Amino acid sequence: MNRRSVVVSAILLTGCVWFTSVAAAAQADALASWNDGATKKGIVDFVARVTKEGGPDFVPVSDRIATFDNDGTLWVEQPMYVQMAFVLDRVKQLAPEHPDWKTTQPFKGVLDGDMKAVAATGEKGLVQLIAATHSGMTVSQFQQMVSDWLATARHPKFQRPYTECIYQPMVELLRYLRANGFKTYIVSGGGVEFMRPWTDKAYGIPPEQVVGSSIKTRFEMVQGKPDLMRLGEVNFIDDKEGKPVGINQFIGRRPIAAFGNSDGDQQMLEWTAAGEGPRLMLLVHHTDATREYAYDRQSSFGKLDKALDEAIAKHWVVVDMKGDWNRVFAFDK
Amino acid sequence: MNRRSVVVSAILLTGCVWFTSVAAAAQADALASWNDGATKKGIVDFVARVTKEGGPDFVPVSDRIATFDNDGTLWVEQPMYVQMAFVLDRVKQLAPEHPDWKTTQPFKGVLDGDMKAVAATGEKGLVQLIAATHSGMTVSQFQQMVSDWLATARHPKFQRPYTECIYQPMVELLRYLRANGFKTYIVSGGGVEFMRPWTDKAYGIPPEQVVGSSIKTRFEMVQGKPDLMRLGEVNFIDDKEGKPVGINQFIGRRPIAAFGNSDGDQQMLEWTAAGEGPRLMLLVHHTDATREYAYDRQSSFGKLDKALDEAIAKHWVVVDMKGDWNRVFAFDK
Repeated sequence: MNRRSVVVSAILLTGCVWFTSVAAAAQADALASWNDGATKKGIVDFVARVTKEGGPDFVPVSDRIATFDNDGTLWVEQPMYVQMAFVLDRVKQLAPEHPDWKTTQPFKGVLDGDMKAVAATGEKGLVQLIAATHSGMTVSQFQQMVSDWLATARHPKFQRPYTECIYQPMVELLRYLRANGFKTYIVSGGGVEFMRPWTDKAYGIPPEQVVGSSIKTRFEMVQGKPDLMRLGEVNFIDDKEGKPVGINQFIGRRPIAAFGNSDGDQQMLEWTAAGEGPRLMLLVHHTDATREYAYDRQSSFGKLDKALDEAIAKHWVVVDMKGDWNRVFAFDK
Repeated sequence: MNRRSVVVSAILLTGCVWFTSVAAAAQADALASWNDGATKKGIVDFVARVTKEGGPDFVPVSDRIATFDNDGTLWVEQPMYVQMAFVLDRVKQLAPEHPDWKTTQPFKGVLDGDMKAVAATGEKGLVQLIAATHSGMTVSQFQQMVSDWLATARHPKFQRPYTECIYQPMVELLRYLRANGFKTYIVSGGGVEFMRPWTDKAYGIPPEQVVGSSIKTRFEMVQGKPDLMRLGEVNFIDDKEGKPVGINQFIGRRPIAAFGNSDGDQQMLEWTAAGEGPRLMLLVHHTDATREYAYDRQSSFGKLDKALDEAIAKHWVVVDMKGDWNRVFAFDK
């Protein structure tokens, strides 16, 4: 080897070493908002196992499907589901066109700020509220309404746009999984059309990777052009037993990793766990009343009770928000 | 510039020129089974326009959604839909367990080879046949049945596995679109679970990019494990007005290119056409009785009547199979 070759080799070698170090550091840094400990280790070890080519637990890229609940798993769901806040605001906005709402439940309750009266109308009342606020317009008109609302609405505790009230450690986890060949999906009980306008920007999850509850739509001519009208009729409820059903219907593969935070995610995690090969099931446990909220077995939104018992019994990963996350939101110092 | 730099530059430049030529040749060859002419030019020009960065018709990669019908657009649908052949074979296979089928329509008709009697039972009979052959097993058991059947079944005219009776020019078109940043989807009236086991191998379209008709499934414990059971109840019909509805529900974006061959695709093409910016709508017209089949306005399967009139009136691309394709199947000489 002549002198020039030695120099070139040295440069190449240094470059490679440098590159490897940077790559390793990037991997380590990818979960910077997660404190070191068993939870983070559980995630990193799982990813290392399924991505190790030739290893006993190797999973080909095409099968690296990861599904994430949204409310309470990726973004805040207290003091109420964000979509519920949207519904209440829409009812107030539409009220002048509906004078009868002043005297008819559940609308009266919404206008009076009497949530107990609203709750008393039960599922029937909820469907009425959804129908009144979510139907009767085209799909693109609804998307525009959602975007417009999100641009001005603020979370009552954090006084930030809702799309900033997303969990930074989970955003890092989504990116980390994608960097390791995973395809990341949202599988939420929330309305699919309520999520699709903003999930790509917030989480890097495009519309076609969002599975959710939906109302029926109908193909028809609107102002002389073919369009899709939203009807006041439930199409699919993507919650509890509906989550595995929705995943199979929309994705057609069983995930190898599933992430949730409530009893609504239990069946998704059970179905994920029942597949062959390595599996990762994770629940976010809201334990931080200061930086976010602390709630589980008694909560009206995101109740975590049976799924927590099952997670403990089956050694699924349970995130202690207070202890495992050094940052909750990107705006936290 | 010293002599060495000149040499290096020359090598780099030659490399670039060579690479560009190879890339251009690869593009031209990508549609080798398409004869030169207006049809091929219509496709290539559209792709050139939407991929030209800075051009007036440029479409970002994320919006390059292309949807393809399956039966008659990607694979053969004569003398009957392939899934119908599967149903008939399944009925014969299951008949020993159902002695009453010998005397009850539509099963009797299937067992006697009396398709007129089957047809006379109408939609009710079809639903009975689907329920008897497509439900009562888990999702993965059904997938296995489909794969097993496809491994041995042969097309009556071509004496080849059905998965070889796919149109080579359309396979090239799928690849060509993907090479140009498109995401390719199947949007078929056929059963989604009947397609997902084989579309990736045949067309390069993974399960999560297949939209189709479906029956309901239920999450339940099967032999002590959480699984999904297929029920004898229709969930969604992905045909005619159902295609735009299905695309919006599953993909959440309006396609910029849509490909079909029958009146069942008309609304998908209309909805695609009604979006803003450049659009490609294409119908495959079966005009080749020798190499494949010739049929349109009078056909029981894949009837092409109103959509053909609309295509002509609106200058959508109509493929003349006989004239535009120099090969129909990969096994053609």
